[in-house]
Amino acid sequence: MAREYTVAVVGATGAVGTKMIEMLEQSTLPIKAVKLLASKRSAGKKAFFKEQELTIEELVPESFEGVDLALFSAGGSISKVFAPEAVKRGAVVVDNTSYFRMHEGIPLVVPEVNKEALKSHKGIIANPNCSTIQMMVALEPIRQKAGLDRVIVSTYQAVSGAGARAIAELTNQVKAFSEGTPLNELTAEILPCGGDKKHYPLAFNALAQIDVFSDEGYTYEEWKMVNETKKIMEDSSIKVSATCVRVPVLSGHSESVYIETKTPLTVEEVRDVLKDAPGVVLEDDPSQQIYPQAINSIGKKETFVGRIRKDLDVENGLHLWVVSDNLLKGAAWNSVQIAETLHEMDLVRVPE
Amino acid sequence: MAREYTVAVVGATGAVGTKMIEMLEQSTLPIKAVKLLASKRSAGKKAFFKEQELTIEELVPESFEGVDLALFSAGGSISKVFAPEAVKRGAVVVDNTSYFRMHEGIPLVVPEVNKEALKSHKGIIANPNCSTIQMMVALEPIRQKAGLDRVIVSTYQAVSGAGARAIAELTNQVKAFSEGTPLNELTAEILPCGGDKKHYPLAFNALAQIDVFSDEGYTYEEWKMVNETKKIMEDSSIKVSATCVRVPVLSGHSESVYIETKTPLTVEEVRDVLKDAPGVVLEDDPSQQIYPQAINSIGKKETFVGRIRKDLDVENGLHLWVVSDNLLKGAAWNSVQIAETLHEMDLVRVPE
Repeated sequence: MAREYTVAVVGATGAVGTKMIEMLEQSTLPIKAVKLLASKRSAGKKAFFKEQELTIEELVPESFEGVDLALFSAGGSISKVFAPEAVKRGAVVVDNTSYFRMHEGIPLVVPEVNKEALKSHKGIIANPNCSTIQMMVALEPIRQKAGLDRVIVSTYQAVSGAGARAIAELTNQVKAFSEGTPLNELTAEILPCGGDKKHYPLAFNALAQIDVFSDEGYTYEEWKMVNETKKIMEDSSIKVSATCVRVPVLSGHSESVYIETKTPLTVEEVRDVLKDAPGVVLEDDPSQQIYPQAINSIGKKETFVGRIRKDLDVENGLHLWVVSDNLLKGAAWNSVQIAETLHEMDLVRVPE
Repeated sequence: MAREYTVAVVGATGAVGTKMIEMLEQSTLPIKAVKLLASKRSAGKKAFFKEQELTIEELVPESFEGVDLALFSAGGSISKVFAPEAVKRGAVVVDNTSYFRMHEGIPLVVPEVNKEALKSHKGIIANPNCSTIQMMVALEPIRQKAGLDRVIVSTYQAVSGAGARAIAELTNQVKAFSEGTPLNELTAEILPCGGDKKHYPLAFNALAQIDVFSDEGYTYEEWKMVNETKKIMEDSSIKVSATCVRVPVLSGHSESVYIETKTPLTVEEVRDVLKDAPGVVLEDDPSQQIYPQAINSIGKKETFVGRIRKDLDVENGLHLWVVSDNLLKGAAWNSVQIAETLHEMDLVRVPE
């Protein structure tokens, strides 16, 4: 008889967790049971999986008894403590936080790019950062065709990447403005980054800070794009620099991506490569004003690519506009897709 | 006796025109009289200059009789017809539209960068595109210090750059959303570009189209940044590529700018150069989360620069975040500043 899985969602009430439940509902994964886990505060709340009403349980180490697959999205400190507890009890973990991503020996996977890396998993698989994933989906087919020397990316990231409270903060600011509050009297308690000291309004603004600041004046979010690109593509020689910016968009990250390939490509060659690429939808017809838009990406699993142009001066240079739903391909869908891929590759087990 | 000027504002009721009046009120220019000109539709409306109530007059060729300086911001087709009429009657024109910018022999001026170009004017001076101006203010001091080989810019442009009707469109969309209209039912009639076929909502979106599409898949806005940079810096060898994006911001353009200088600079050297540069305010302290923000730039004449970082791989590469009020330094203030500079250089006259 074909194997069926008990799947746990950790952080089931969060912006990503609720989308993980939706993605599992739509998944091809053979699911026997779903277990929804969250903090004590959320325990006892109800949620649905398909037609079935489930009670959210408090996350404790014993939660993972009998669980085959656990999808984590409850913050790095939760993953740090509970992911090993899950593995200890035989569950394979797909972790959406940044905690394990750069750990040696932990696969960091975008299924369209490097699913082979799953073969070496020891119980935990890391889901990359939202802004990295969509860029990887768009760039890998180009890299396969012409190599990849260099990436310069500027992001236009949606507030949902900062969680449910950040979404509420933006919509409250926008509502206050619509009701007459002046722009300079809008208040903020969360953005740009819950864990940082100062907070700034996002409504009608662009905040050039995502996550806290780190080395060389780059933010952690920017370092994630740099380091995760090299790890996923298994090529530390690719030059990557990023500027990560939050904009007043609810969901859908947009990215202005400049690349230099090893050999030159025409715009038509890039379109040819992308139009059949896995997970990619080509939306690129300037004559019809067709290009990817954040609001059109909401609820879709694909990554949308358009505005493909040759650089005006550099033979191997290309510009692209890359858009995807950050809660889906950037988080929940990529995690569930990893779970599906583990199943297809018969890897839903913790190695001895 | 010192000379005093009669100054006309053409397009006095528009988003930029109203700011031109404000900038003239604050100006050091010796002003004898102000004349407000607009289309027939707006003629008869009242507006204030300092304490004085003025009646807006219909723009006709004869409007310029007795005018010394005329600031135009009523669209390229108006400038095309009426700027020569103004010059014919002895007025020096500062034109904020794109119409004359790339014309041979017409100075295109950012006073901090190339005021010497004013000396050759024949009656018309062009004011550059908003997104170009602030980038020039930020980059010229760096270029003076270390040369400039290359620019890659991604913009985060405010809706006010598209005029008063576009501002109303965004605020109406935001209000409708706050009152319960779903995101996918928001309507648009103007943006991304009044003159183009299709219109898309800007609220909670990022639109990778400003102005209509042109050659090589680049929009006119993107070409303006490319061509105007070379003309203002008087160096056609500088490599420039741009991706211009409209974001749901009311005023204040932000830009993610990557440059390669001819000789390498440290971050401290860039800060040293910028902290005393004309028209620049350095806002760059990651440890205190200090970086330029669109909403903080509103009403200010300066260009704000921060997030200064060395590229992680390229020795001569630098990243900056450049923000300015697009209606002021990007338009009205740069025009009035050109007028002030013409006065200081004794150039407020049409050469024989």
